[in-house]
Amino acid sequence: MTPYASLIARFARIATIEEAAAVLGWDAAVMMPRGGGAARGEQLAVLAGLAHETLVEPKTAADLATAVPPEGPDAAWHAANLRLMRHAHRRAAAVPGALVQARARANSDCEKIWRDARAGSDFPAVRAALTEVVALTRELAGCLAPALGMSPYDALMDGFQPGIGAGDVAPVFGAYETFLARALPTAEALATAPLVPRGPFPVAAQEALCRSLAERLGLDFAHARLDRSAHPFSGGTPTDVRITTRYDEADFAQAVLAVIHETGHALYERGLPARFARHKVGEAAGMAAHESQSLIVEMQAARSDAFLSWLGPRLHAAFGGDPAPYAATNLGRLWRRVGRGFIRVDADEITYPAHVILRFRLEQALIGGELAVADLPGAWNDGFATLLGARPPDDARGCLQDIHWYDGAFGYFPSYTLGAMAAAQLMAAARRAEPGLDAALARGEVAPLLGWLRREVHGRASLLGFQDLLIAATGKPLDPGDFTAHLTARYLT
Amino acid sequence: MTPYASLIARFARIATIEEAAAVLGWDAAVMMPRGGGAARGEQLAVLAGLAHETLVEPKTAADLATAVPPEGPDAAWHAANLRLMRHAHRRAAAVPGALVQARARANSDCEKIWRDARAGSDFPAVRAALTEVVALTRELAGCLAPALGMSPYDALMDGFQPGIGAGDVAPVFGAYETFLARALPTAEALATAPLVPRGPFPVAAQEALCRSLAERLGLDFAHARLDRSAHPFSGGTPTDVRITTRYDEADFAQAVLAVIHETGHALYERGLPARFARHKVGEAAGMAAHESQSLIVEMQAARSDAFLSWLGPRLHAAFGGDPAPYAATNLGRLWRRVGRGFIRVDADEITYPAHVILRFRLEQALIGGELAVADLPGAWNDGFATLLGARPPDDARGCLQDIHWYDGAFGYFPSYTLGAMAAAQLMAAARRAEPGLDAALARGEVAPLLGWLRREVHGRASLLGFQDLLIAATGKPLDPGDFTAHLTARYLT
Repeated sequence: MTPYASLIARFARIATIEEAAAVLGWDAAVMMPRGGGAARGEQLAVLAGLAHETLVEPKTAADLATAVPPEGPDAAWHAANLRLMRHAHRRAAAVPGALVQARARANSDCEKIWRDARAGSDFPAVRAALTEVVALTRELAGCLAPALGMSPYDALMDGFQPGIGAGDVAPVFGAYETFLARALPTAEALATAPLVPRGPFPVAAQEALCRSLAERLGLDFAHARLDRSAHPFSGGTPTDVRITTRYDEADFAQAVLAVIHETGHALYERGLPARFARHKVGEAAGMAAHESQSLIVEMQAARSDAFLSWLGPRLHAAFGGDPAPYAATNLGRLWRRVGRGFIRVDADEITYPAHVILRFRLEQALIGGELAVADLPGAWNDGFATLLGARPPDDARGCLQDIHWYDGAFGYFPSYTLGAMAAAQLMAAARRAEPGLDAALARGEVAPLLGWLRREVHGRASLLGFQDLLIAATGKPLDPGDFTAHLTARYLT
Repeated sequence: MTPYASLIARFARIATIEEAAAVLGWDAAVMMPRGGGAARGEQLAVLAGLAHETLVEPKTAADLATAVPPEGPDAAWHAANLRLMRHAHRRAAAVPGALVQARARANSDCEKIWRDARAGSDFPAVRAALTEVVALTRELAGCLAPALGMSPYDALMDGFQPGIGAGDVAPVFGAYETFLARALPTAEALATAPLVPRGPFPVAAQEALCRSLAERLGLDFAHARLDRSAHPFSGGTPTDVRITTRYDEADFAQAVLAVIHETGHALYERGLPARFARHKVGEAAGMAAHESQSLIVEMQAARSDAFLSWLGPRLHAAFGGDPAPYAATNLGRLWRRVGRGFIRVDADEITYPAHVILRFRLEQALIGGELAVADLPGAWNDGFATLLGARPPDDARGCLQDIHWYDGAFGYFPSYTLGAMAAAQLMAAARRAEPGLDAALARGEVAPLLGWLRREVHGRASLLGFQDLLIAATGKPLDPGDFTAHLTARYLT
């Protein structure tokens, strides 16, 4: 067996362990009785340890040093694959096993404490645990930075969206802050109060609707599930994707929009090239790329006037009652409302980046050591007031609202807004390439968009980095101008 | 770290991998979309490989050779634990990795072919695949036998119920055959036709009833789930047990009795001593022991006159209609019907052992090489006619009906009847120890029985082998007389 073939086998084994962990993670959020939590934590820790051990075996380094990617029509794929395997190994080998275990324990402990702290809006209760998490994350970043030749914070970002660093993001976010200061008052002034559909909306009817919408958007339930969980997410594996939502009988929009969003994630996984399954090059191109796929389906396609004109009558057929709230114009007003809320996950398209910008700046300061955990609540509230003009009334609506940091995920937040910007850029390119795209959306058909995405994004998997993927698909690297143009057209005119 | 402590850590890791596999196995049967099957097979194969590799690491053998079990109040537990670890290692080390993989592939292939062969009652379609499975199983038995100092067939039995071999079973089964020839005509002559409750019985009502019955029997849903699957089973892990059933709106008995049966299995897992979780000594004492726990709950307790007198009114409350079929006397007639059916899983308590005896004899002959796979259908039909007086009209109702052999499980079948016999023996002892047991059952209370089982069986886990466990709990080794006495009291008087 050649060194390259041996690496393929080893990384397939790692990917298979990660698939098992993905299903167990889904189960923990969707199916597991609460008494199973402790054992599940152990199961996931053991699987993560096995994957890590397989990656850092001495044989891996030896094979990586000598492997030659095969020639032939897939030469570029194999070359990228080898590069990605080397990168994954470099990251894993840079971190001592003891630190991996200490982080797993600290993150898990902190996340548990955080659940109660958030419920009680009690930041001091979680301060010590978060301090430990930040210290260990800084230690991690300190190990990764020299190995990768990046700053510590960039080394963390690299774990979520390779190829993008703070130096790329900071100017984009700075420009957006300027845009927001001008755009938000205008959008608020132009907003028209919507009619609100009257419920109740029975869960069974919502669920049937959500399922048929996911299918309409291209999801094949021979390879997918739709379930309920406290927070909607997309999980599972490429041949068995599992999306979740939650149902509120007073408001169907939450469930429907979450399913549309998660379907975008699921379609990306389903569209990855099967011949590179369990290869590094066959994975999705990073978290920003993933978010671009959920947002292009949810924000760009499904909340467009064209799709809403198709969707409105279907919603009315599902729930009955007065048809007026289901008119496309009203659905647009309802589902594209702008507001200065405190909660990121409830934010609209215009203010959402402000929530991300705040977190991006604060987490850089935490990792850089310029901000102490004890000072986080004040810094959060000050930053929020600067960006959106109001101070959160408590930490539950402030620095306690997101799980990410309390679970040790630093460097992830920028992916949300990078994804939103990429989604706008991809949609603009898709519209140029597929002139019938919007007419099809008005018939509830996503084939032109989905076909283009499969070709230009899904089918490329990790062959290209984030910027090169955008260049290949749209002719240019990340250009936030397409996002602000989209917002201007939708909210400011 | 002492060699013993190092072994504890390694076996805990193996047990944790097996927990992950157990949840994935449950998911495959209950949740997984069919498109996920191929990837799931890989995931389970990789986990099985990792568990096996961890077990046969050179360090394991070295530690096993030098380990000394700790003294103190748990000395007997640790001594048994070390003995069980050595035994597990001996089994694993005796089998070449290539054979493990070849069996996994052959069993999986054969099982898939069998599904269609059974549906079409087409034994020739699966003959070649089963021949390969039998050949590899014989090879396995041939590796295990010298390592364990047993006959090849006993080495296979040992994988399901350690401590019991064909030499223990054959005379017991021979005596039962004699009992059956006398008892069955008598039971048939004494049987009275039951009233049959009239449906439909809505699935939601059945499901609610099943859940409340499982709780009434002692299952705590903070550590359990109840779901649907094609065939009822009990799976999951000791802190997260998962039982399944299937619902037929025309007949609630199938779902209710399956849930009661699987609850018995689940209670055993829940009753294993937490302080020995993930130790070999903390596992259930084998498949016959496990079956004794499902059958003591289902056959001994729940189908008793006492419990039926409590259950009847609850069933009537759940489903309404004419109360007469729900009278305890009628439920007894209904749920203790005797008949000479061809299908094992539909068999009554008296004829069930005949189905097992047939399989026990045939699989010994297959493993011993005295029976060729091609001759299996004829041998099956001849044997069935001898035992129960009729020839199966086709192989779907003959040698194709059970998955076990087609999935490579030889040596498992005796556990069913050993479990039934042990259940009767344990119930007789429990009644002696807990004089209020039946009065409690008549109030729908299982506390006296369950408390006794937890003390005498569940809490002992694998501290004792099957026979020693029976001696400790009942004062004697396996004594089929308690089973025939139970059948005589229930069916022959």
